[in-house]
Amino acid sequence: MTPTITAFEASPDGGHGLARDMPVRWALEEVGQPYDVRLVSFAAMKEPAHLRLHPFGQIPTYEEGGLALFESGAIVFHLAAHHGGLFPDDADGRARAIMWMFAALNTVEPPVVEHDMAPFLDAGKPWYDERLSMLEDRVRVRLGELSARLGAADWLDGEFSAGDLLMVSVLRRLAGSGLVEEYPNLAAYVARGEARPAFQRAFAAQLAVFNASSGG
Amino acid sequence: MTPTITAFEASPDGGHGLARDMPVRWALEEVGQPYDVRLVSFAAMKEPAHLRLHPFGQIPTYEEGGLALFESGAIVFHLAAHHGGLFPDDADGRARAIMWMFAALNTVEPPVVEHDMAPFLDAGKPWYDERLSMLEDRVRVRLGELSARLGAADWLDGEFSAGDLLMVSVLRRLAGSGLVEEYPNLAAYVARGEARPAFQRAFAAQLAVFNASSGG
Repeated sequence: MTPTITAFEASPDGGHGLARDMPVRWALEEVGQPYDVRLVSFAAMKEPAHLRLHPFGQIPTYEEGGLALFESGAIVFHLAAHHGGLFPDDADGRARAIMWMFAALNTVEPPVVEHDMAPFLDAGKPWYDERLSMLEDRVRVRLGELSARLGAADWLDGEFSAGDLLMVSVLRRLAGSGLVEEYPNLAAYVARGEARPAFQRAFAAQLAVFNASSGG
Repeated sequence: MTPTITAFEASPDGGHGLARDMPVRWALEEVGQPYDVRLVSFAAMKEPAHLRLHPFGQIPTYEEGGLALFESGAIVFHLAAHHGGLFPDDADGRARAIMWMFAALNTVEPPVVEHDMAPFLDAGKPWYDERLSMLEDRVRVRLGELSARLGAADWLDGEFSAGDLLMVSVLRRLAGSGLVEEYPNLAAYVARGEARPAFQRAFAAQLAVFNASSGG
């Protein structure tokens, strides 16, 4: 059965593949699972029909037969658990790949998102400059720790896994800030992720939606 | 083999069980798995021996034979996957329990943590009141959505699961703010979680550590 995901009808990310449908599309491409996409407007995301599917009124969602999921991390997990290619075969390696999924979303992402949101939440406020500088330093703490752990390895723990997929997705949100570039091994890690054919296909798919929405 | 977790030698939470060893202790108690605890000082958390175990220099960690994990969500997942009691038996119900784990840690927790941290990061700044008010509103958005989804149910999706364990743990971080109390069904939900015998045992265990560290 072909699953259906939801994505922004008009993504606010300018076509850069920074919305949360991107890691789900990437995971679907990595495991070779075809999928349908239903586009949702900002207004429709907050209406009862969508809230039944996603109580927090966001994208993406994932529907497959009688199963309906929200939360990109959970959807990537579901795909990794039911297809080959995103989890190692051995139990301990799999537990560590799951560990990196949670680390990406619960340890590295929160300061990245705060940094991302500052121009929207705090721009024009008297505290903006001081706060932005503090947020950059919070991000640097996590990037420094991650850089030290990654070292000269290609991926966080052996072969590419769902943990890398989510970590690269989180680091991509810093594009344009110059912060990742302060850690050359992390910049190379992101580039390795973006060079994967599955990433390229997913990126092209979301870009096509953005271009259609913007008349491009 | 008895697993070993790490916890703060002297928790900054005043014995309220708000540090991240608490959900891990709670999960261990729910599944009936005895465990050892190794206490770590703030200084030791940033030293090479601990950083090898936890690249972000935090607690808790989990060691069991040759497996070493960090990230509380991943440790709770590991316990739920290898013991009965924290995941439903059917595949779709299990996928939804995992969905709520990610929702707790990646959608509800980030604004809760920002709200938590404001007194440390922003207290005394001229913008503190305005910023705190904005952070409270961000938390209210998520609590309102969660309250609407929970409705009159006891737990988020059928029986108590690892998703509830993490969601209750996240909501407990708002204790004292009065925010959860604005949503009576969420306050009752947290109270139901705290009333579970496994929670009570875990709470007592962390409190004993805190009391010992504070000479209490």
